Amino acid sequence: MATLLIRNIGLLVQAEKRPRPVVSGAEMAKLPVLPHAFLLAENDRIAAFGPMERCPERADTVLDATGRMVFPSWCDSHTHLVFAAPRDEEFVDRIRGLSYEEIARRGGGILNSARRLRQMSEDALLEGAWQRLCEVIAQGTGAIEIKSGYGLSVESELKMLRVIRRLKAISPIPIKATFLGAHAVPEEYRSRRHDYIDLIIHQMLPRVAEERLAEYCDVFCDRGFFTPQETERILQAAWQYGLKPKIHANELANSGGVQVGVANGALSVDHLECVGAEEIALLRDSPTLPVLLPVCAFFLGIPYAPARQMLDAGLPVVLASDYNPGSAPSGRMAFVVSLACIQMKMLPEEAINAATLNGARAIELEADYGSIAVGKKANLFITRPMTSLAQIPYFFGTDPIETVILNGRVWKQP
Amino acid sequence: MATLLIRNIGLLVQAEKRPRPVVSGAEMAKLPVLPHAFLLAENDRIAAFGPMERCPERADTVLDATGRMVFPSWCDSHTHLVFAAPRDEEFVDRIRGLSYEEIARRGGGILNSARRLRQMSEDALLEGAWQRLCEVIAQGTGAIEIKSGYGLSVESELKMLRVIRRLKAISPIPIKATFLGAHAVPEEYRSRRHDYIDLIIHQMLPRVAEERLAEYCDVFCDRGFFTPQETERILQAAWQYGLKPKIHANELANSGGVQVGVANGALSVDHLECVGAEEIALLRDSPTLPVLLPVCAFFLGIPYAPARQMLDAGLPVVLASDYNPGSAPSGRMAFVVSLACIQMKMLPEEAINAATLNGARAIELEADYGSIAVGKKANLFITRPMTSLAQIPYFFGTDPIETVILNGRVWKQP
Repeated sequence: MATLLIRNIGLLVQAEKRPRPVVSGAEMAKLPVLPHAFLLAENDRIAAFGPMERCPERADTVLDATGRMVFPSWCDSHTHLVFAAPRDEEFVDRIRGLSYEEIARRGGGILNSARRLRQMSEDALLEGAWQRLCEVIAQGTGAIEIKSGYGLSVESELKMLRVIRRLKAISPIPIKATFLGAHAVPEEYRSRRHDYIDLIIHQMLPRVAEERLAEYCDVFCDRGFFTPQETERILQAAWQYGLKPKIHANELANSGGVQVGVANGALSVDHLECVGAEEIALLRDSPTLPVLLPVCAFFLGIPYAPARQMLDAGLPVVLASDYNPGSAPSGRMAFVVSLACIQMKMLPEEAINAATLNGARAIELEADYGSIAVGKKANLFITRPMTSLAQIPYFFGTDPIETVILNGRVWKQP
Repeated sequence: MATLLIRNIGLLVQAEKRPRPVVSGAEMAKLPVLPHAFLLAENDRIAAFGPMERCPERADTVLDATGRMVFPSWCDSHTHLVFAAPRDEEFVDRIRGLSYEEIARRGGGILNSARRLRQMSEDALLEGAWQRLCEVIAQGTGAIEIKSGYGLSVESELKMLRVIRRLKAISPIPIKATFLGAHAVPEEYRSRRHDYIDLIIHQMLPRVAEERLAEYCDVFCDRGFFTPQETERILQAAWQYGLKPKIHANELANSGGVQVGVANGALSVDHLECVGAEEIALLRDSPTLPVLLPVCAFFLGIPYAPARQMLDAGLPVVLASDYNPGSAPSGRMAFVVSLACIQMKMLPEEAINAATLNGARAIELEADYGSIAVGKKANLFITRPMTSLAQIPYFFGTDPIETVILNGRVWKQP
């Protein structure tokens, strides 16, 4: 048995005696912490933690975390990590005054990513995605979701999902795969969008299910993309293949995405920049989780989701990166937490709950990830020297992470 | 003679055949670049650069920059790098709803920094400032300005300026020192602010001049801080001691700071979140430089300075970090450039000009820093693999810098 011991932890964060599945509303302002603590991992799991007075004497690997905090790794429940190329030309187009929607109408945006991805080999895609996965792991992510959606044809969607499957096979952190054939209507189907939806339902979904390539099914339900009616058709078909819905909703307009997500038992509705009291009330009365992606609002210059209203309504807010080349070219979760505090006025404790335990819940991994609890996977990080939780979002310019531990082993050291 | 050669540079950025002192208005959208280039440094200066076909055969140190860009180091003309401690509690107070001005009125803000700094030894201050200086150097800064202003008593202001002088003695990059005794009215002078201004003029300024502790004199000319009349008194006294004005203006209100700066021959007026057409016109007709600090607007959630209107009016816009514990706890200039593009809609070329050559001008170092030109100091950085200038602001989440060269020598390697 391999043991790893972290001694003299200044503050052990999200340390749960009794693991909770999710944290909601006012509870999110509370974060269980333990000062001057130790943590012991046996093999890949957390075996014990507590005050330093009860620290074990020895272990195979011993780390000292004096003046530092130890966190459970971030759980990033919404990314588009597999893509062919950056889209910095469109970034310049937006500076010159074009909107994200205008760029999409001109065949840029998602369709641009799709064109490039279709031309790229599975091996080359895997190589780029693996580099990005290693990048976010070094930035503290310890569980992640990845979507398809830049294929937009049977073969290319399957290619993307196979890349995700190959990533799963080599990744030190768990990956959940989401099929997002309905990310945009591809150019060749522009005048016959129903045919594309039929293609998703009758050709893509059966293949995805047959090859067991995804856990979830996503639809970009928004103005200019898919209508609530179209979304419903796809989600109901997905359920028949055992794929749970987890959808893009209300980014560009209050366009019915929350309603269709809740009605179809979505695990989460993600984005939510454009929601009102009705959508918040609907979410309060359902198990569907609200996933907020502040980097997208920051990068596109659109309004942020009303996080405070959601918290006041008692919702279990989740934060994720949305890492993608069009609207969020960064998967750094500590910066997501910073934006949540600086721009959406979430308290540091709320943002940390949203990016750890609630993030794990949004990919159904809360039994094993998202907090420091005996029996959970030992995926953690040690910060650089820091004296308060608030310094995580406060020092937004540099990553707070010094050491990364995955499966009870040191993955990255300073 | 020590020589350093960089070969196979993908793109050599801000490479000037004829060095310009500053770039203004429409010119800022142009950035001289050279693809597939070399650069040769002899001792601490740039000796030659050009297309790879003319690359020298050997040098003492040879670096390969295939697929990478080479930039002149950032010139950061506005920082408060010397301070006692972070102010993350106030950050949380702001999340809970207090404004920056309310915190200041309660004795927080600058006065909080002053209380802590007065208790700290010169050696301890130096240690913290040196760490931060090393941090920003690793992030690509190659020339910097540092202000006092957290002392607010004769002895503590002198202590801060002596820390800056000691930093200058050990720093590999040039530092300009600015005396900012008029950063806030200290608590003990609250009911007799004129006495504090007299203290600045009759006791601080003579000592600063006598010990040659600063090049510039700054005043926080804004609502709740110093009035234009008070600012003018201080600046005129500063001129008599040979200290050129370089002031904080129009951050919190359109409060006459630009007018008093221009009228008193300020080298720059910094902040400018609250300016109108009148202030922009005034700047157009003067040599005073507008220095914009977008991190402050980002972190405080106040409006950004109207950079596009300034560019349209032909102004030589400058970007700086404002690194300080209250309103900008990061000195990472690449993120400043990102914010300028994402939030203020500056083009990547404009932002890069503003953060290099114009930054150097704002601390009167443009003859030696701020661009790649023969005879200038070899302070540069090599990016990680990148295919376009726009990727510098586009990848806002991670620092683009792999290798730092200072005075013709490798300072940081990947």
